[in-house]
Amino acid sequence: MDDDMEGGNLGPFQDRPRTFPSMKSKAYAPWIFRVLMRINSRILLLLLLVCFGAIFYIGASTSPIIVFVFSVCIISFFVSIYLTKWVLAKDEGPPEMSEISDAIRDGAEGFFRTQYGTISKMALLLGLVILGIYLFRTITPQQEASGLGRATSAYITVAAFLFGALCSGVAGYVGMWVSVRANVRVSSAARRSAREALQIAVRAGGFSALVVVGMAVMGVAILYAILYVWFRVDSTGTMKATDLPLLLVGYGFGASFVALFAQLGGGIYTKAADVGADLVGKVEQGIPEDDPRNPAVIADLVGDNVGDCAARGADLFESIAAEIISAMILGGTMAQRCKIEDPSGFILFPLVVHSFDLVVSSVGIFSIRNKRDSGVIGTIEDPMRTLEKGYSVTIFLAVLTFGLSTRWLLYTEQAPSAWLNFALCGLVGIVTAYVFVWISKYYTDYKYEPVRTLALASSTGHGTNIIAGVSLGLESTALPVLVISLAIVSAFWLGRTSGLTDEAGNPTGGLFGTAVATMGMLSTAAYVLTMDMFGPIADNAGGIVEMSQQPESVREITDVLDAVGNTTKATTKGFAIGSAALASFLLFSAYMDEVAAFAQESFKQVDIAIPEVFVGGLLGSMLIFLFSAWACAAVGRTAQEVVNEVRRQFIERPGIMDYKEKPDYGRCVSIVASASLREMIKPGALAIISPTVVGFLFRILGYYTGHPLLGAKVVASMLMFATVSGILMALFLNTAGGAWDNAKKYIETGALGGKGSDTHKAAVTGDTVGDPFKDTAGPSLHVLIKMLATITLVMAPIFL
Amino acid sequence: MDDDMEGGNLGPFQDRPRTFPSMKSKAYAPWIFRVLMRINSRILLLLLLVCFGAIFYIGASTSPIIVFVFSVCIISFFVSIYLTKWVLAKDEGPPEMSEISDAIRDGAEGFFRTQYGTISKMALLLGLVILGIYLFRTITPQQEASGLGRATSAYITVAAFLFGALCSGVAGYVGMWVSVRANVRVSSAARRSAREALQIAVRAGGFSALVVVGMAVMGVAILYAILYVWFRVDSTGTMKATDLPLLLVGYGFGASFVALFAQLGGGIYTKAADVGADLVGKVEQGIPEDDPRNPAVIADLVGDNVGDCAARGADLFESIAAEIISAMILGGTMAQRCKIEDPSGFILFPLVVHSFDLVVSSVGIFSIRNKRDSGVIGTIEDPMRTLEKGYSVTIFLAVLTFGLSTRWLLYTEQAPSAWLNFALCGLVGIVTAYVFVWISKYYTDYKYEPVRTLALASSTGHGTNIIAGVSLGLESTALPVLVISLAIVSAFWLGRTSGLTDEAGNPTGGLFGTAVATMGMLSTAAYVLTMDMFGPIADNAGGIVEMSQQPESVREITDVLDAVGNTTKATTKGFAIGSAALASFLLFSAYMDEVAAFAQESFKQVDIAIPEVFVGGLLGSMLIFLFSAWACAAVGRTAQEVVNEVRRQFIERPGIMDYKEKPDYGRCVSIVASASLREMIKPGALAIISPTVVGFLFRILGYYTGHPLLGAKVVASMLMFATVSGILMALFLNTAGGAWDNAKKYIETGALGGKGSDTHKAAVTGDTVGDPFKDTAGPSLHVLIKMLATITLVMAPIFL
Repeated sequence: MDDDMEGGNLGPFQDRPRTFPSMKSKAYAPWIFRVLMRINSRILLLLLLVCFGAIFYIGASTSPIIVFVFSVCIISFFVSIYLTKWVLAKDEGPPEMSEISDAIRDGAEGFFRTQYGTISKMALLLGLVILGIYLFRTITPQQEASGLGRATSAYITVAAFLFGALCSGVAGYVGMWVSVRANVRVSSAARRSAREALQIAVRAGGFSALVVVGMAVMGVAILYAILYVWFRVDSTGTMKATDLPLLLVGYGFGASFVALFAQLGGGIYTKAADVGADLVGKVEQGIPEDDPRNPAVIADLVGDNVGDCAARGADLFESIAAEIISAMILGGTMAQRCKIEDPSGFILFPLVVHSFDLVVSSVGIFSIRNKRDSGVIGTIEDPMRTLEKGYSVTIFLAVLTFGLSTRWLLYTEQAPSAWLNFALCGLVGIVTAYVFVWISKYYTDYKYEPVRTLALASSTGHGTNIIAGVSLGLESTALPVLVISLAIVSAFWLGRTSGLTDEAGNPTGGLFGTAVATMGMLSTAAYVLTMDMFGPIADNAGGIVEMSQQPESVREITDVLDAVGNTTKATTKGFAIGSAALASFLLFSAYMDEVAAFAQESFKQVDIAIPEVFVGGLLGSMLIFLFSAWACAAVGRTAQEVVNEVRRQFIERPGIMDYKEKPDYGRCVSIVASASLREMIKPGALAIISPTVVGFLFRILGYYTGHPLLGAKVVASMLMFATVSGILMALFLNTAGGAWDNAKKYIETGALGGKGSDTHKAAVTGDTVGDPFKDTAGPSLHVLIKMLATITLVMAPIFL
Repeated sequence: MDDDMEGGNLGPFQDRPRTFPSMKSKAYAPWIFRVLMRINSRILLLLLLVCFGAIFYIGASTSPIIVFVFSVCIISFFVSIYLTKWVLAKDEGPPEMSEISDAIRDGAEGFFRTQYGTISKMALLLGLVILGIYLFRTITPQQEASGLGRATSAYITVAAFLFGALCSGVAGYVGMWVSVRANVRVSSAARRSAREALQIAVRAGGFSALVVVGMAVMGVAILYAILYVWFRVDSTGTMKATDLPLLLVGYGFGASFVALFAQLGGGIYTKAADVGADLVGKVEQGIPEDDPRNPAVIADLVGDNVGDCAARGADLFESIAAEIISAMILGGTMAQRCKIEDPSGFILFPLVVHSFDLVVSSVGIFSIRNKRDSGVIGTIEDPMRTLEKGYSVTIFLAVLTFGLSTRWLLYTEQAPSAWLNFALCGLVGIVTAYVFVWISKYYTDYKYEPVRTLALASSTGHGTNIIAGVSLGLESTALPVLVISLAIVSAFWLGRTSGLTDEAGNPTGGLFGTAVATMGMLSTAAYVLTMDMFGPIADNAGGIVEMSQQPESVREITDVLDAVGNTTKATTKGFAIGSAALASFLLFSAYMDEVAAFAQESFKQVDIAIPEVFVGGLLGSMLIFLFSAWACAAVGRTAQEVVNEVRRQFIERPGIMDYKEKPDYGRCVSIVASASLREMIKPGALAIISPTVVGFLFRILGYYTGHPLLGAKVVASMLMFATVSGILMALFLNTAGGAWDNAKKYIETGALGGKGSDTHKAAVTGDTVGDPFKDTAGPSLHVLIKMLATITLVMAPIFL
C-alpha cells in the first residue's frame, strides 16, 4: 500500500531522486581506507614505520623541537586510536536503535561524499587559478637570492593549499565518522548508566579533537621540515628559517577554504531540517521533537552530524592551522628584526604549545571516568560539573606547560626576562578564553537574568519575544568586545615591554605578544573541541532514544546530556569567535609583512582617511551583512521546502499520525541534501571572489591615479572592517540564537505557563529564528573571518 | 458609572498621575510665543524689521553672498507663513473629529514640553562641561595670532552649541506644531476631495520643511556673519575667513545633541504605543487598527507626531547644519591650501546650495495643486505619482541651480574648469540620492520581488517570516553600499582632477569634491522632508477618520494617503542614511584638520594596523550594536507596559468592546510618555559618554607609552568604524522594518489568504518586530552617526 501511495500521489515530486530507499546500510569508507584495508596488516605496519622513520629523519635534520612535536603528535595519534577502539567496543544496543543509527549514518556519509566531492572539485579549480597567479607573480629579492624560483614558489603554494584542503577534509570526515558511530553507543549506554553514556560521548569527542588538533600541528610541522631540508636552510644559508613560514600560507588557505564550504553546507543542512521538522511537527501537529512520525526527523539527526561534527572539526582545524602559521610568520619576522641568533624557538613556539595542548587535553579527557555510579540506573549527577572539572584540570596544566614552553623556547640572552612577559601574554589569552566562555554562559543560560527576561517577553507575544531576543543578542556583543580589546592592548603592551628591540632600539615584541596571547587562548583547544563535539553526539543519542521509544528513565539521561551539550556548544562558540578575532588580527599583520616583502617598499599603514581605503572598509563590512543574509535566507528557503514536503506527507499518508504508515524519511534527507549543496555555493563564492575582485579593481584604479599599493591597502581595510563587523555579527547571531533556544527550554521546565501555552508558542518562534543564526550564519562567520585573512595572504600578488 | 469604576478598580495604578482627564484642550504655546502675541502687532512688525535690518547690515558687511542667502531665507520664511495660513484656513471638520485631534495635540504637546524640558537641562549641563574643557584647552597659533583668546574661543563654542540646540528644538517644535493642526484638516478635507486632502498634507509638510531647512541655513549664516564682523576678518586681516568655520562646530553638535534625544524619545514613544496597541488590539482582540475601543490608540496617534514629525524635523535640521559646516571647513581648508585669493565662494557655497534648495523645493511643493478633481468625492488618483511628479520638477530645477551655483562661486582663474568638475560632483550626489530612493523602494514596496518573497515566507509560519525579513534587511545593505562607494570614489576623483593644486603642485580638490557631492545629495532636502512629513500627517488623518467613524469612502482616501506616506517615509530614510554616510566622512576629515591644527603637527593618517587604533574600531562598531540593542529593548519594555495596561482595561471595563464604556486613553498616554523619557537616557548617554571616555583613556595610555596623539587616533578609528557599522545597521533596520510592514499590507490586500489568515498573523508578527527597527533604532542611528562626528570635533581637546 505504501508503494501504491508513493507511486500514485507524488505529483511534481516524482522525478526527483530518492536516496533513502536505495541507500546501502553498510558503512561507506573512502577508497584510500579500502585500499589500506586490503593490504596485509604487516606490510601496513612496515609502511607506517617507514613513514614515521622518514618523518623523524627529516625532523631530526631540522630541529630537536620538531622531533619533540612529531613525537607528541604520534603518541596522541595512538591515544586517539585507543579512544576509538574503546568507543567502538561498546555495544550498539537493540536492533531498533542500530536501525535508526544506520539510517543516520547513511544519510550523513552520503551527504558528506557529495558535499566533499563538490568541494574538492572547487579546490582543484582554485588550485589551478592560484598556480596561474603565482607563475606570473614577482618574487622577493630574498627569495631570488635563496634560489627560490617563480615556478617553485607557485608549486609550493599550490601543493600547500591542496594539502591543507585535504587535511581539512580528513578532519571533517573523522569528526563525522566517530559521531555517527558513537551516537547509538551512547543511547545504548544510557539504558545502563548516565556516567557511562557521558564517558562514551566525551571519549568519542576526544578522539576527533585529538585527531583534528594533531593533524593541524603535524601538517604544518611536516611542511616546515620538508621545506627546511629542501632549501638546506642550515648548511648553505641562502634561505633563512624566518622566510619559511610565509610559504605555508597556502596550507592555511586550503584549510579555511574547505572549512567555509563545510560549515555553510553542513550549517544549512542541519538547520533547514531542524526548522522544517519543528515548524510542522512541533507547531502545527503538536508532536514532540524527534518523534518517529515526523518525516523530517532523520534529516534533522543527520544534520547534527554533518553540520556540527564535520563542520566544527574543519572549523577548529582551520583555526589552529591559521593561527600557528600566522604566529610563526610573526615570530620569524620579529626574530629577524631583533637579530636573534637561533630564531627556531620563536618560529616553532606555536607548534610546541599545541603539542602540549594535546597532552593536557588528553589528561582532561581521561579525567572523566566511569567510577562512581557504574551499574546503577537513575542516579544522574550534573554532567556539566564533570565536564567543567575536566576543563579546570586542563586549564591548570595548560598554564604550567605554557610557562614551561615560553622558558624553553622564548628565552634569549638579549632580553633575559622576555620569556616571562610572553608567559604573561599567554596567561592573558587563557584568562580571555575563560572570560569569553563565562560571558556566553551568562547570556545564554537560563539560570541568569538575560534569558529570563527574554522568556518573560514571550508572554506578551511572538513580536516582543523577537524584539527582546534581537536586543539581547546585540547587547551581548559589548562585554566580549571590551574583553578582547583589553586582551589585545595588554598583550601588545606586555610584548612591547619584553625588552626585545630591533637594531635602532625600538621595542618590537608587541605583535608577537598578541600572537602569544592567541596561542594562550587556544592552548586548551583540544579539550574545548571535545566538549563541543560532545553536544551533537548527545543530541543524536537523545534522538535515537526518542525514536526507538525507550522508557522515560533512559530519555531523562539523554535529555540531561543534550541540555549540557547545548550549553557547551554555545560556550565554545564564544571561544571560537574570540580566537578568530585574535587570529585574524595576526594574519592581518602577516599580510602587511608579506605585501611589504613583495612590493619591496614599506607597508606599515592602512590609512582609512583615504577615501578609497574607507570605501574598502565599507565594502568589507557590507560583505559580512550580505554573507549573513544569504546564509540565513538559504536556511529559510530550504526549510520552506521541507515544510511543504512534510505537510504533503501528512496529507497523503494520514496513517502516519497513528503509527499506521511509515513516513518517507529518505525524501526529506535527499531534499535537504540537494538544497544545501545548491545553497552553499552563493555565499561561499561571494566570500572568495569579492576580496579578490575588489583588490584587483582598486589596483587598476591606483595604477591610473598614480597611487601605488592602493589595491593592497583597500583589501587590508576591507579585511579589518570585515573582521570587526564579522566578530560583532557572529556574537550577535550566536548569542541571540542560544538565548532563544534556552528561553524556550526554560519555559518548557514549566515556567510562565509551560509547554503548550501561548508563551511557549512565542518562545518556539524565537527558537526557530535562532536556529539559522546560531548554527548556520554565526559559525560560518567564524570561518569566513579567517578565510578572508588567508585569502588576502594568498591572493596578494593580484593586488600588487 | 465610569467614575465609579475608575475610582474603585484601579488597584496599584491609583497613585499614578492621570494626564488625560485634566488635560486642557486649549493649545499650548511656549512663553516666547505668548509674550510675542501680547505685544501690539505694529510694534512686533517694527521689531521684526529692526531685526532683519540688523541682520542685513551684518550680512552686507560680510559678503554679498550672505546677503543673497539672507534674502532667500527671509522670502522662504514668508512663503512658509503663507503655507501655514493656507493650511490653518481649512476647516477642522465636525466636533467628533476636532475632539480627537485636540486629544492628540494635547498629548503631543505635553510630551514635547516634558521631553524638551529634560533635553534642555541636559544641554545646559553639557554646555557647562564644554565651557570647562575649552577654558583649559590650548589654542592654535593662528587663533592666538588673530587675538582669539582661550576664553573667547570657549564662549563662542558654548554659545554656538546652545544656539544650535535651541534652533533644533524650534525645528522639532515647528514640525510637531503644524502636524497636530494639519491632521484634522486633512481628515476633514478627505470628506470632500482626495486631491485637497493630499494638498493640505503636502503644504503642511512643506511649511515645516521650509522652516527647518531655512533655519539651518540662516543659523549658520548669522553665526558666520557675526563672527566675520566681530573679528574684523576683512580689515585687520589677523583672522582669516578660512578659520571661521571651525568655530561653528558647536552649532552642529548642539543640533545633533538635541536631535539624538528627540529621535530616541520620540521613536521609543511612537513605537512602544504602536506595538502595544497592535499586540492587544489587533492580535488578541481582533479589532482593526486605530479602533476607538483600543485604549492605546490616542497614544499611538500622539506618537506619530512626536516620533515622526518632531524627531524627523530635528534629524534633517541636524543633517543640513552638520553638512553645511563640514563642507565650509573643507572648502576653507582647500581654498587656503590652493592660495585662492577670495575664499568666500568656497566657504559659502553650501549656504547658497541650500538657499536654492528652498527655492526649488517651494516650486515643487506648489506644483502639487488642487485642480482636477475638486469637489468630486471618490475619484482617487495615485498620490504617489503626484508626489513623484513634484519631485521630478524639484530635481530638474536643482540640477540647473546647482550648475549655476558652482559657476558663480567655484570659478577661479587658477583652474578655470574646476567649477565644471564640481558641478559633475553635484550631479553624482543628485543621482546617488535618486538611486538610493529607488533602492529602498525596491526592497520595501510590495510591487517588487523581495517583499513578495517575504510575504510568501509568512505562509510557513512566524519563524520563517522573521528569518526571511532579517535576511532581506541584511541583503538590502549591499546595493546602497556599492552606490555610496561609487559616489565617494568618483566624486573624490572628479575633485582631484579639477585642476586645483597646492603650492607643491599636488591635486587638493578630492575631499571638497566629496563634499560637493554630499551637497548635491541634499540639494532637494526641503522637498524630501516635505514628502517625509506628509507621511505621519496622513497617518494621523487616517486615525482620526477611523476613530470618528467616518463612512468607508472617506477612509479609502486616507488609507491611500497613508500607504503612500509609508512608502515616502521608507524612501526618505534611505536618503537620510546616504547623506549621513557622506556627511560623516566629511566631518571625519574636518576632525583630522582640526586635530592637526591644535596639535600643531601633521595628522593625516589613521592607521588601523596599530593595535590600539584597531581596538578603537572594535569599540566603535560595538557602540552601534549596543546602542541599537538598547533602543530596541526600550521599545520592547515600554510596549510590554502598554500591553499590560491595555489588557487590564479590557478586563476591568468589559463594556469597552461593545462601545458601552470609554477606555482611559490618558493613562496609556502618560505611561508611554514617562517610560520613553526614562528609556531615552541610557542609549543617549552611551552615545555621548563613550567616545569621550575612550578618547581620554587612550590619551592617557598614549602618554605613558610614548605614543602622541594616540587618543585622537583611536577616536578617529572609533568614529569611522562606527560610521560604517552604523550605516549598515541603519540600512538593515530600516529596510527590514519597511519590508515587514508592507508584506503585511500586501497580505491585507487579499493575497496569500488575506486578513485574518495564519499567514496574516505571521506577517503581523514581522510588522511588530519591524516597528522599533524602522522607527526607533534605525533613525536614531542616522542621528547617532552624525552626532558622533560632531562630538569628536567638539570634544577633541580632551583627546589631545
